[in-house]
Order: sequence, then structure tokens, then C-alpha cells
Amino acid sequence: MSLTEVSSNKIFGGYQKVFSHESKEVGCTMKFGVYLPPQVEENKRLPIIYWLSGLTCSELNFLQKSGAQRYASEHGVIIVNPDTSPRGLNIPGDSESWDFGVAAGFYINATQEPWKKNYRMYNYVTVELPSIINANFPVETGLQSIMGHSMGGHGALICALKNPGLYKSVSAFAPISNPIKSAWGHKAFSGYLGPQETSSWGEWDATELVKKYNGPALGILLDQGLDDEFFIKGQLLPENLVEACKAAGVPVVLKKREGYDHSYFYIASFIGEHIKYHVDHLTSKL
Amino acid sequence: MSLTEVSSNKIFGGYQKVFSHESKEVGCTMKFGVYLPPQVEENKRLPIIYWLSGLTCSELNFLQKSGAQRYASEHGVIIVNPDTSPRGLNIPGDSESWDFGVAAGFYINATQEPWKKNYRMYNYVTVELPSIINANFPVETGLQSIMGHSMGGHGALICALKNPGLYKSVSAFAPISNPIKSAWGHKAFSGYLGPQETSSWGEWDATELVKKYNGPALGILLDQGLDDEFFIKGQLLPENLVEACKAAGVPVVLKKREGYDHSYFYIASFIGEHIKYHVDHLTSKL
Repeated sequence: MSLTEVSSNKIFGGYQKVFSHESKEVGCTMKFGVYLPPQVEENKRLPIIYWLSGLTCSELNFLQKSGAQRYASEHGVIIVNPDTSPRGLNIPGDSESWDFGVAAGFYINATQEPWKKNYRMYNYVTVELPSIINANFPVETGLQSIMGHSMGGHGALICALKNPGLYKSVSAFAPISNPIKSAWGHKAFSGYLGPQETSSWGEWDATELVKKYNGPALGILLDQGLDDEFFIKGQLLPENLVEACKAAGVPVVLKKREGYDHSYFYIASFIGEHIKYHVDHLTSKL
Repeated sequence: MSLTEVSSNKIFGGYQKVFSHESKEVGCTMKFGVYLPPQVEENKRLPIIYWLSGLTCSELNFLQKSGAQRYASEHGVIIVNPDTSPRGLNIPGDSESWDFGVAAGFYINATQEPWKKNYRMYNYVTVELPSIINANFPVETGLQSIMGHSMGGHGALICALKNPGLYKSVSAFAPISNPIKSAWGHKAFSGYLGPQETSSWGEWDATELVKKYNGPALGILLDQGLDDEFFIKGQLLPENLVEACKAAGVPVVLKKREGYDHSYFYIASFIGEHIKYHVDHLTSKL
């Protein structure tokens, strides 16, 4: 599997790089960001955190706006952030909405035409991409965690809940916590999976998945700005996920942030806390 | 003078805002960013740092990508960053080049048609904007410093050198240090000021201005990435400015950053150092 380096910029002593490659899983050229902290030069194998971005994002938003590199350098952790959907396929209807199709893959495997061949972001981020990363960068095998924002926050949650033990920890900024109960989720799942009555929407919904989670202890860190317009409009529903976690005995913490909204200004303010949380799990301090 | 709030986002405990207003100096609607750290809620008057951005930038690049808000909150300093030129005037030729006209005002006052009526960014950033800021935000009178990047790094230097005592300190990331000797400077100054032989280009060139600086002690902090393509191509020429400072007895420090380029990844890595430098001057620790 060959990688093409798209860009490389020194930041906080390490290198923020972007690579492209031909993806078998989604059938197009995909890009991802990878931050290599200065510790890679010591020939160490490092833990890794995956970041999944939200609606409308490419791989660039996170690496330009979150400020994560500072904290990754402090802790010596690699961060990888993929794009949010296949691109350049020109599937009819893939660019008509900002919340469906391009930049809105929802990290699920589609089952409906014309999406099921390419919209397989779940397999891409849980299987294909990690195999590429592990083969090309100095990653300590098995030491991986996952986090994300909004659509990507939910993506991180389903990746962790559907793969017990694969990730040491999971966190989410303003995740779409219960998509089968939100307008964004209805639109995406209807398109990718077909009608709710005849398909398994619950297999791709964190609040449903946590009810039957059966695996190693998985602490879930949720983060929510209280002035987030999408939280206020009922698109995010973190309270449903917290309730389901409590009923299922899955530890969960929900940080409520007074005055913060849904933007990268909010993420930048707390990404350091999230990286520290993951590093503590990855280095067995928790 | 009325301000219109364009946006407001909470970040690191304070608020990153953008305002618009009608500028008399440049004759159009102008936008600027202002970061108000949490200390403004204590009814204190705070010191202020102005940031001047580089070619192609609006007010958004700095406030989305630099990560400056974290450090401004730590130190309790307001940061204001204006746009880089008039916009929306549709002066013939103002949008044909990325390095002349819109987003390329060079922080000088033009003397040539058709630019001299509106391209007066020097007066805008040194007189009109500070008067608006001082009237609308809790700024401690007289406690101001200035910094910038590339074209804006040079802008910061000429603002400080042409106004002894107005700014407590000045710093610049990868400034166009000697524009009368660089291709970017030749293009801009020819257009805005006319032929070099018949106009006073030296009045707008930091390396020339420092030779006749006569005012309060002014420490200059320069910062340069050694992998910066524009440094390598001779557009920036910090060595000329350093030499002129030494000859004139003006203290200067040039930080050389191995492996860093011209991007905001570089700025993000060292903006904390620059803010600390200014805060030390603004609070009379130096």
C-alpha cells in the first residue's frame, strides 16, 4: 500500500503531515492527516489516537484549527485524522446536501444503492486505515484510542462500542449521540441503510449499542457546550446516551461547558483535556 | 462610531469576537477580530496587542489558526487583528494579483491613483482602529504592543518605528524586512507609491527607518523559520534589518527556527513566546 505525501509542516517540534492513498474499502483516493510528535525521532513506538471529524469537514479542519499538536508533543502520542467520506466519485446526489453524501459519511457501512459500494467509512476507519498506519508509522501495536466531534464524535463511539477492546478509551465532543432519534441521523440512515422498519439502524447508534455492550471496561468521556445550537435543537441528545450508559453499567462522564458552542473554538479549549484522558488510558495510568 | 458584532465564540474562557464598522480612513466596511480574555469580566483595564496578518489573509486566519487565545487568557491581554486591506470597492486591478490590491495593503498610505483614496492601511491601523478599540473595549490607555506575520510583520515594524513610544514592544514572524529590496515590495510600492526614483519608498521600509530611529528604547523581536521558502528566495531579508539595527544601536533579537516554514503551523508553535515577550514589556517587567 503506497502513500503519497501531500504536505508536511513542522509544528511544536513534530511534523503535521497529510498523505493520500488509494482505498480499496471506499474505492477512491483518500487523504488523512498524521501528526508525528518529536518523540518519533527517538526510534520509539508510540501510542496513537484517531480523530474523526464532523459534517462538512475534510482532514484539514482538525489539523489547522484544533491546536492538538501542542498536546500530542507534550505527551508523545501520534494523532491520525481521516477525511469524512469518499470524494470525487460523483455519485448522483452525493453533493446536494451538506449533511448527506460528500463530507457526511457518518462512519457507517451503507447497505443501499447507490451508496453501498463506496460509503463504507466504518470499515475504512476501523480496519483499512489502521492497517496502513501500523505498517507505515512507529505505532505501538494495540495502543490506540479514538475521539471525534459531532458526526465524528458519534463515529468514535460506535467504533469503540462495536469493537470491544480495540480502543483503550473513547471520547467525543458534542456527538450526535442517538442518531435514530435526530433529524440528521434519520436523513443519513434512511439514505445509507433504507427505512428504519426494515433495516438495523440500531446497529449504528451509540445509545442502542451501549445497551448491549459486553467487553472490557470502557470509560466514555462526553463533552458538550451548553450554548451549542445543535444541542439546543435536539440533534445531539447526549442525555439519552448518558441514561443508556447508566442503565447498562458503562462508566460515562459528561462534561458540560457553560457558554461554549459547536465550533473549533470550543474544541481548541478542551482538546488538551481529551488528549490527556486518552494518554492516561494508553499508558495504563487508569 | 458604531460597531456591528459579526460573530462571538467562547474559547479558553474568553470570547473571540469579530466586528464590522464603516471606516472613514479606507472608505469601506472593515472587519476586525478582538479577543477578550476572561479577565475583562473583572472590570479591569487590560493591555492590548495588535496583530497584523500577511498576504492573502483576512481577519479569520489568525483567530482560527494561531491558537493565540490560550496565551492571551493566561496573561490577561486583549488581542486585536484587523483585515489586511479595504474590500468590496472594486477598484480596477485590485483583484488581479494575490500580492497586490485586496488582501495586500502592505500597511502603507498609498499616494498614487487609483489607490490613494482607500489604500490607507497605515493610518487605519495606527490611528482609526485604535481610537475605535479604546472607545469600545476595556483597554489600559497607552499599554499597547504590535506584532504580525510576513507583510504584517513588516507592517508591525513600520508602525513601531514611525511612532516612537506608541507601542511598548514590537515583534514579527518572518517579516518582509526590507521591501525596497524584495520583489513583493517592489511590486507593492511601485503601485501604491509610484517609481522608486521619484517617491519616498524608504519612509515605508523598516530597514531604512531603523537607521534614523530616534525615540524610547525599542526592543525588536524577529522570528524566522529556516525552511521558509520565501526566506530562501530572498523575499524576507531579515539579515538586512538585523545589520541596520546593529549599526543604529537598536536592540534586536532574531530567533532562527530550524525546520519551520512560513505557515500558521509555524506561528502556532511560537505565538506563546511572542505574547509573553509583549506582556513582559507591557507590564514593565522589561
